[in-house]
Amino acid sequence: MVIKLSGSVFEPPVDANLISSFCKTFKSITKDKVQPIIVAGGGSVARNYIKILRDLGSDGTTQDEIGIAVSRLNAKIMIQGLKDKAFPTVPASMDELSMALCSKPIIVLGGLYPGHSTNATAALVAEKSNACLFINATDVDGVYSDDPRINKKAKKFDQIDTKSLFDLISKSPMSAGAYDLMDPLSVKIIERSRIKTRVILCTPENILAATKGHHIGTEIIVRE
Amino acid sequence: MVIKLSGSVFEPPVDANLISSFCKTFKSITKDKVQPIIVAGGGSVARNYIKILRDLGSDGTTQDEIGIAVSRLNAKIMIQGLKDKAFPTVPASMDELSMALCSKPIIVLGGLYPGHSTNATAALVAEKSNACLFINATDVDGVYSDDPRINKKAKKFDQIDTKSLFDLISKSPMSAGAYDLMDPLSVKIIERSRIKTRVILCTPENILAATKGHHIGTEIIVRE
Amino acid sequence: MVIKLSGSVFEPPVDANLISSFCKTFKSITKDKVQPIIVAGGGSVARNYIKILRDLGSDGTTQDEIGIAVSRLNAKIMIQGLKDKAFPTVPASMDELSMALCSKPIIVLGGLYPGHSTNATAALVAEKSNACLFINATDVDGVYSDDPRINKKAKKFDQIDTKSLFDLISKSPMSAGAYDLMDPLSVKIIERSRIKTRVILCTPENILAATKGHHIGTEIIVRE
Amino acid sequence: MVIKLSGSVFEPPVDANLISSFCKTFKSITKDKVQPIIVAGGGSVARNYIKILRDLGSDGTTQDEIGIAVSRLNAKIMIQGLKDKAFPTVPASMDELSMALCSKPIIVLGGLYPGHSTNATAALVAEKSNACLFINATDVDGVYSDDPRINKKAKKFDQIDTKSLFDLISKSPMSAGAYDLMDPLSVKIIERSRIKTRVILCTPENILAATKGHHIGTEIIVRE
Amino acid sequence: MVIKLSGSVFEPPVDANLISSFCKTFKSITKDKVQPIIVAGGGSVARNYIKILRDLGSDGTTQDEIGIAVSRLNAKIMIQGLKDKAFPTVPASMDELSMALCSKPIIVLGGLYPGHSTNATAALVAEKSNACLFINATDVDGVYSDDPRINKKAKKFDQIDTKSLFDLISKSPMSAGAYDLMDPLSVKIIERSRIKTRVILCTPENILAATKGHHIGTEIIVRE
Amino acid sequence: MVIKLSGSVFEPPVDANLISSFCKTFKSITKDKVQPIIVAGGGSVARNYIKILRDLGSDGTTQDEIGIAVSRLNAKIMIQGLKDKAFPTVPASMDELSMALCSKPIIVLGGLYPGHSTNATAALVAEKSNACLFINATDVDGVYSDDPRINKKAKKFDQIDTKSLFDLISKSPMSAGAYDLMDPLSVKIIERSRIKTRVILCTPENILAATKGHHIGTEIIVRE
Repeated sequence: MVIKLSGSVFEPPVDANLISSFCKTFKSITKDKVQPIIVAGGGSVARNYIKILRDLGSDGTTQDEIGIAVSRLNAKIMIQGLKDKAFPTVPASMDELSMALCSKPIIVLGGLYPGHSTNATAALVAEKSNACLFINATDVDGVYSDDPRINKKAKKFDQIDTKSLFDLISKSPMSAGAYDLMDPLSVKIIERSRIKTRVILCTPENILAATKGHHIGTEIIVRE
Repeated sequence: MVIKLSGSVFEPPVDANLISSFCKTFKSITKDKVQPIIVAGGGSVARNYIKILRDLGSDGTTQDEIGIAVSRLNAKIMIQGLKDKAFPTVPASMDELSMALCSKPIIVLGGLYPGHSTNATAALVAEKSNACLFINATDVDGVYSDDPRINKKAKKFDQIDTKSLFDLISKSPMSAGAYDLMDPLSVKIIERSRIKTRVILCTPENILAATKGHHIGTEIIVRE
Repeated sequence: MVIKLSGSVFEPPVDANLISSFCKTFKSITKDKVQPIIVAGGGSVARNYIKILRDLGSDGTTQDEIGIAVSRLNAKIMIQGLKDKAFPTVPASMDELSMALCSKPIIVLGGLYPGHSTNATAALVAEKSNACLFINATDVDGVYSDDPRINKKAKKFDQIDTKSLFDLISKSPMSAGAYDLMDPLSVKIIERSRIKTRVILCTPENILAATKGHHIGTEIIVRE
Repeated sequence: MVIKLSGSVFEPPVDANLISSFCKTFKSITKDKVQPIIVAGGGSVARNYIKILRDLGSDGTTQDEIGIAVSRLNAKIMIQGLKDKAFPTVPASMDELSMALCSKPIIVLGGLYPGHSTNATAALVAEKSNACLFINATDVDGVYSDDPRINKKAKKFDQIDTKSLFDLISKSPMSAGAYDLMDPLSVKIIERSRIKTRVILCTPENILAATKGHHIGTEIIVRE
Repeated sequence: MVIKLSGSVFEPPVDANLISSFCKTFKSITKDKVQPIIVAGGGSVARNYIKILRDLGSDGTTQDEIGIAVSRLNAKIMIQGLKDKAFPTVPASMDELSMALCSKPIIVLGGLYPGHSTNATAALVAEKSNACLFINATDVDGVYSDDPRINKKAKKFDQIDTKSLFDLISKSPMSAGAYDLMDPLSVKIIERSRIKTRVILCTPENILAATKGHHIGTEIIVRE
Repeated sequence: MVIKLSGSVFEPPVDANLISSFCKTFKSITKDKVQPIIVAGGGSVARNYIKILRDLGSDGTTQDEIGIAVSRLNAKIMIQGLKDKAFPTVPASMDELSMALCSKPIIVLGGLYPGHSTNATAALVAEKSNACLFINATDVDGVYSDDPRINKKAKKFDQIDTKSLFDLISKSPMSAGAYDLMDPLSVKIIERSRIKTRVILCTPENILAATKGHHIGTEIIVRE
């Protein structure tokens, strides 16, 4: 099972109790012999670093790279909270992930490659690990017809198929660290590998509910 | 300058004369103090390896990885043809690419990351290296309104903007090693960094013509 | 137990059923608490890549290196067939092999170092892992007095000692990817570490028979 | 020449003009055929990450590691400001530093090893590179008899010898990311290799003045 | 549990029986579900290599590095003696150590970073692994008021607190490979993490006694 | 040009003057725009480490590995003597060697791979770098009909062809660190790549003479 964790969890000053409460949820998931793989987002610290690089005239790939580096620091925080239930280092490639999966019940990583949002990374990780479920725990409580933080009339979907979702999001421009509920690449990956996916608001309770199959947030479905 | 080289160049039995003739072109480009970065595609050898993994039930990420590995073998062939004009090893990450750029006039690489076609890799490399031009040397002589190998009535564009191109290609499914003139990710990257791009038929002569600014193939433009 | 697998197994188009049938054999071996280490050869794909490098005037070491890279792709195929019984990545050094041996029942690798055929690699791996048996599964059904594909009168040995074998093979020249039943280095390693070795025709049935101690192919013995 | 740069330079929101002004200074130093090596500190972002690890009960070594990771992000910012005058990646070991020194006029790194403050890292780097001068550009304008931010009567030294400095600082406890003007290890290294050292307030102007031999801040001297 | 092993154990000609007897002790410790981490010192071979570098005018950091390299050879000897009870390679960083701890009952390493004695390395390792006990098995049978090999009137302490120890040792100069019972850095680390520490004469019997809580050598205590 | 340097040069106590005198010779060679690659042997320190591993029952591959590790320490000594004329680190693979060759006039390495003597490594390095000459500077002043240290009647050859040399040496057994004037693998490599080779007694004067084409020691020739 792959869980993308919104970068907002790691907003400074980070709350140790919140981290511990996520850790408790992840540990409880392992009791059912499921091996959760957590992908931490970068959050506002990543956006700050990306902004200064942009101000200095850096290219988009390097901006992506510094965002990845921050998401790995966030992964490291979560690992510390999970103590010896988690693989002790943050995998930095698919090969390192594969090896980590051989040895510990919980794996935490951040971004992997420039050009990929942490959402796309999480989708690839779900594909690579043949995950039974991909939970995208994000800042909003599901997929909306428009950005609900801007457009109050945006409508939330209970289900959306990958083609409609692709059309919805491919209108928006791509830039490192921007609002990316789901980027085009992650939708293409979900589609090519028919990955069972759910977008939810990021709380420990919601994650637990989603792992139990509750119908919260938005389900992404792949049509023939 | 970044040149994506079609995998078909490396079709076995590989023709040493063809390789040498590409090498001669690349060396001649360096005379104008331009540092060409070549991204080799995987070609049919890659597709064979991808097919057997698919037959064995492997996931898409692992299929991508074996395709990348083959494209790196092809890069190695080109390096051997370029002798000491080229950086002697194949960079396997953006950091390795950055370091290679400090030391030799020509760099040859293959794919970098799963989830990226070699086209998207080439676009990222063009972004990272602030390339003045991205030449996508491919199997067809430009962007068509449909796959010209299937639809004989497909119309070739002299110019196409990124939005229209994105719409054109986002209809097709994503699968490792498939027909990918330009994939959605590469178009998004060209757009976000306003990279000057041209799609041409892959021959040494065409590449030389494109570097000289001749209007061959299809130019991809970014509108406001 | 170390099993050198002829590169011919991976002859394109690779047959998924053949791969699966080898995988079934390897998995059945693990039931007796034996940890098989498979060393995949490069086969004709390797020879094609080596040939083009030779045509381009490359040195022998670089030719060896590209052959190694191809043998690792073949190893990756076998790993995909073995699924989670196999260590998920291809060890690229003795240290990586040692660490892989700590974690999974089956390890698959390709070549390791230039200057070594995959036979010599397999012999070193047998030495390093204190293997109880080294099975060289090759294109011919044992050691002959001459190359049986050329000389129809070549006589097959049931047993041959390392000194006679060394004399037999040291007549032939060394070149990357050439006919190498056993090269001088592998014989020297078998001799220095007294490794129990058998050369057989590469089929799943023969490998299983050899692991059970059946007298097939040619046994290589070390005299005082 | 080694310049330790206070982490406060990278205080969010980072000021692109301030970074550019430091970069201008570093580039001007290279005109005298001096190769400046910049060691970036971690600053408050590092202290935030260290704090959350401490709240989660992590050990001091892991706290050091996350502080190092942040200082490397800061180094990356400075590299982006220096563009192609700087080595493109952040060396993560002495070996990587040695290789970087072969290729570009300016090198920027962050911390290297747990157990070392970035000051001690800078002292080791000065030793390793046989630096003619080690400038410790910090938050205070020299070495004081006590922490001047707390004790207003603290007296600033124009010169202090390593033994007195060691006594002065060895009273304070060691903890990751804490006030460390100079830690015991850095003083020991300055002493063993007789490195010419000056502690100054971190501004572009002061750094330039110090490189020109002006008597600002505090000079650290090694007695027989 | 972390055990620093004096480099004198590896004095050439190394005695295989002595090594085996240490190995027997380490294996017996694992029976109580304790995972011993052994840190091997460099000994006289290290000092010889350091001396020649000093004669050639090398810097202190490079001298440290060659000392570390020798201590890792010594670690490799111990691993060979421990056979499959030990992790098969020598961790070269804290991350490698963390991963090794996931897989085998005994880990053996040498030095890690320049600027650290193997004592300081062992203290950091004790901190990182939350060791219940740090045994410093050295050439003398405890901490003395002066170097007992020079001053016959030196008095041995049964207990010493970290502050007194720091004062005692900070008088002596720092140089690669020199007499370093405990260096300032290791004392600071013991202090910051309140690590239970005992300094004993390095024999298999003493190590076993110390693990059982016997009052031999000198106990280092941390006062409020 | 590749120069294999006998491990006896590094016999403890190493003589800094001897090292400096070799360094002077190597630097003088670079004046003719030749880039010398030095391969350091392991010597008696290597043999001591190999012996203790053998006493502990280790396999031959691990014995090779510890010998390689010692030869790299010796390479490090030579690099320190050459200061900034040499690449600062010891290449540990052919790829690292290729990259080092892009940046500094002199490269020093030790062994590379288990199963290869440092002689075979030097032959592979000569092949990889298209060396104009391979000088094997060893403990005896050329190739003899028998080991001249044992058989006083052994006759020295002025010239010997690879086939005769192969026959001569293939009689002796292979064991890590043993008397290896030239091992079978190195002869095979010299033969396959027709490398111009000379075996001489290892002194700075002889090396200089050999680089100037003087007829000292034994020339190894490759017949059609």
